[in-house]
Amino acid sequence: MNFCEQQLTRIRPLWDRVLDHRFLRETRDGTIARDTFANWMQQDYLFVEAAIPFIAALMPKGPVEHRAALGRALPGLEKELELFRERAAAVGVELRDVRPSFTNHAYVQFLLASAYTKSYAEAFTVLYVAEKAYYDSWMVVRHGIDRESVWFPFVENWTSDAFAGWVGYLQQELDGLADSTGPAERQRMAELFEITARYELAFWEMAASGEGWPGLEGVVEC
Amino acid sequence: MNFCEQQLTRIRPLWDRVLDHRFLRETRDGTIARDTFANWMQQDYLFVEAAIPFIAALMPKGPVEHRAALGRALPGLEKELELFRERAAAVGVELRDVRPSFTNHAYVQFLLASAYTKSYAEAFTVLYVAEKAYYDSWMVVRHGIDRESVWFPFVENWTSDAFAGWVGYLQQELDGLADSTGPAERQRMAELFEITARYELAFWEMAASGEGWPGLEGVVEC
Amino acid sequence: MNFCEQQLTRIRPLWDRVLDHRFLRETRDGTIARDTFANWMQQDYLFVEAAIPFIAALMPKGPVEHRAALGRALPGLEKELELFRERAAAVGVELRDVRPSFTNHAYVQFLLASAYTKSYAEAFTVLYVAEKAYYDSWMVVRHGIDRESVWFPFVENWTSDAFAGWVGYLQQELDGLADSTGPAERQRMAELFEITARYELAFWEMAASGEGWPGLEGVVEC
Amino acid sequence: MNFCEQQLTRIRPLWDRVLDHRFLRETRDGTIARDTFANWMQQDYLFVEAAIPFIAALMPKGPVEHRAALGRALPGLEKELELFRERAAAVGVELRDVRPSFTNHAYVQFLLASAYTKSYAEAFTVLYVAEKAYYDSWMVVRHGIDRESVWFPFVENWTSDAFAGWVGYLQQELDGLADSTGPAERQRMAELFEITARYELAFWEMAASGEGWPGLEGVVEC
Repeated sequence: MNFCEQQLTRIRPLWDRVLDHRFLRETRDGTIARDTFANWMQQDYLFVEAAIPFIAALMPKGPVEHRAALGRALPGLEKELELFRERAAAVGVELRDVRPSFTNHAYVQFLLASAYTKSYAEAFTVLYVAEKAYYDSWMVVRHGIDRESVWFPFVENWTSDAFAGWVGYLQQELDGLADSTGPAERQRMAELFEITARYELAFWEMAASGEGWPGLEGVVEC
Repeated sequence: MNFCEQQLTRIRPLWDRVLDHRFLRETRDGTIARDTFANWMQQDYLFVEAAIPFIAALMPKGPVEHRAALGRALPGLEKELELFRERAAAVGVELRDVRPSFTNHAYVQFLLASAYTKSYAEAFTVLYVAEKAYYDSWMVVRHGIDRESVWFPFVENWTSDAFAGWVGYLQQELDGLADSTGPAERQRMAELFEITARYELAFWEMAASGEGWPGLEGVVEC
Repeated sequence: MNFCEQQLTRIRPLWDRVLDHRFLRETRDGTIARDTFANWMQQDYLFVEAAIPFIAALMPKGPVEHRAALGRALPGLEKELELFRERAAAVGVELRDVRPSFTNHAYVQFLLASAYTKSYAEAFTVLYVAEKAYYDSWMVVRHGIDRESVWFPFVENWTSDAFAGWVGYLQQELDGLADSTGPAERQRMAELFEITARYELAFWEMAASGEGWPGLEGVVEC
Repeated sequence: MNFCEQQLTRIRPLWDRVLDHRFLRETRDGTIARDTFANWMQQDYLFVEAAIPFIAALMPKGPVEHRAALGRALPGLEKELELFRERAAAVGVELRDVRPSFTNHAYVQFLLASAYTKSYAEAFTVLYVAEKAYYDSWMVVRHGIDRESVWFPFVENWTSDAFAGWVGYLQQELDGLADSTGPAERQRMAELFEITARYELAFWEMAASGEGWPGLEGVVEC
């Protein structure tokens, strides 16, 4: 069994928690509160914006052969940001001057710190799991959501053939990186596989709960 | 008014929340549950361990004159880890195989990501605020805690003259860095000043609540 | 006077040495030996390949507003590599399995080390000077080279309106970064301005001399 | 055969060139010109100063078990700098305001770029080879130099039991890192093994020749 399949099997209970999250179910069923979805939009816009430097930071550490694909992902993410801005304008959500929630801020730091302090194969694991989680999550939503929903363009974006192809590419390359390394690094890759899935779960929790910052709930901004 | 004083004044309501945290008050008053303090010990041990590479990562970016002081801080932190191990053995707390809580993991990622992606003056701001918060926090505990408390050696460590001298050195150098830069970087330094204080608050929240991982409460580890 | 203009004036004697290099003059006059130019092609191909991760490494440290322009530069460099491959095929130069010369290897390390250890404004200075040197250098060649020369497509590439626009953009942004910082960082930017120009000079020296590795001249590869 | 032994065998002709360098022979035989040695002192002082951030930059990427040893190396290098200053004062060599030669600057960039863009095992290879080269080089000098030579304290420093122990530790750990990884990374480690040895050779060449900057020989500083 290849590395990715093996890991997805190993962390199945955690992965199921991610995919069965109430945020996804309620979005699929059309019962999600507008403000809840709007909060996710605001936070995820900041997250996508931060994913660009994460991928850029991977490039100098990886093989020359990966550069073209990673380089193409950057304008892809810029286009994703445009989708957010278009939807935000369409439904009246403000994307400017939004402060990242605790979990969002933390997840972005995790991406960046991984890119700088971990080996390429380890940091590439983080990239794969983050993208794979989005693909699988939005596939859950796709099976049931009303095509007329104002949120449907997001579903379409992350369940498109193009995105599936990107995730498939990452999976194949990550399997290759895992095959060519030794047991010590593969063990660290497995740990990061799980930790990234945990951050994904925390992200949906944050999206559903509208979490602010621990210890600052109900406090006027200083 | 110098930069540090100015910022501490600006974020005073947030700083007061840090210093007035129930974790500190209960430790001072001797009413803290042993398991609550033990949880803090386990998590903070991991945090101090991670502070070593954070400081090391600052060194290549800073002025030559800062290297000796930062270099000396590394064995200082190794000694701090020994204090944790000594106390843990004395009171029967297990420090091995502890998993970082969400907030702890996040805070460490924030330190590392700051060291790599921010300017030296910005990352130095993060270092100062983290150390200053510990000094001020444990000074709160010092005024009231029973000197016979098994936790007193921690109080002693972070309220010692040596630690006060280190924090004073950082403050003076940070003021100097702020003076010699322009308004754009100073603004980013001010933002990181506040964000670091927010992470400190989140850390006490985590210590007091025994928080695990969002969305995984009550779940058997996968 | 803006920063870039000021620096170009300050290092004028060095800059003139770069622009008046025999490699450029001989290429312009059509007297350059085919093997000398072929050697430059082989080495510069490796250099352009390495410039991609350099620019990628700048992205996480810079302002959000710079990301789109830097991100677009990456496919631009991929296209430049294609130009090398097309020319190499046309004139029978082998680009594979070429070992970087000492100076080439060194210059690439300088780019990368700057991206990681220097502030964004400092590392951006390195990027600007490297690009500006290429624009100015190939403009020297343009004024005189036979349009039918097999090397003309390179001249065209780095003297095009598109490339001029990119260099102009970098200059304007670097001037802005210099304006908004303090004297200490501006001094470090000025030093890197000069050091980068020195590396450019060393690069033309290497191109013209066919230099290998110090102390290994005439030795069979180990 | 372990990795280090294997590589030292593989690059033997190159390694012999390093150890048989005229700079070392002349220092051993007492025939070296004072100015030549003084030039080396000035340049190597800058190099040792730059080795401190190189080692610091390795720390966040390596295993926790390596941190104490790497952390102790930092004050060790500070002590080495003191030896330079003491000798410089004793023999009247000026260490301040020295500009790094081209090769020296390049080697430092190579160290830093390796620490940031290569895997830990790869960057650790660079550290080992640089230290091993110094140990072996100065052992050549030790066998023959007059103990009363003013340069003897340098010989003593890099042929001491303490330094031999450090090099032995690095060798053992590097062998372990090579054992636990896969063939792709081991291949990259072998390449860096050789490249570092090439930089060592270039460094002795620079020391012996008093090299300045390519293309700037005989030019007044701009």
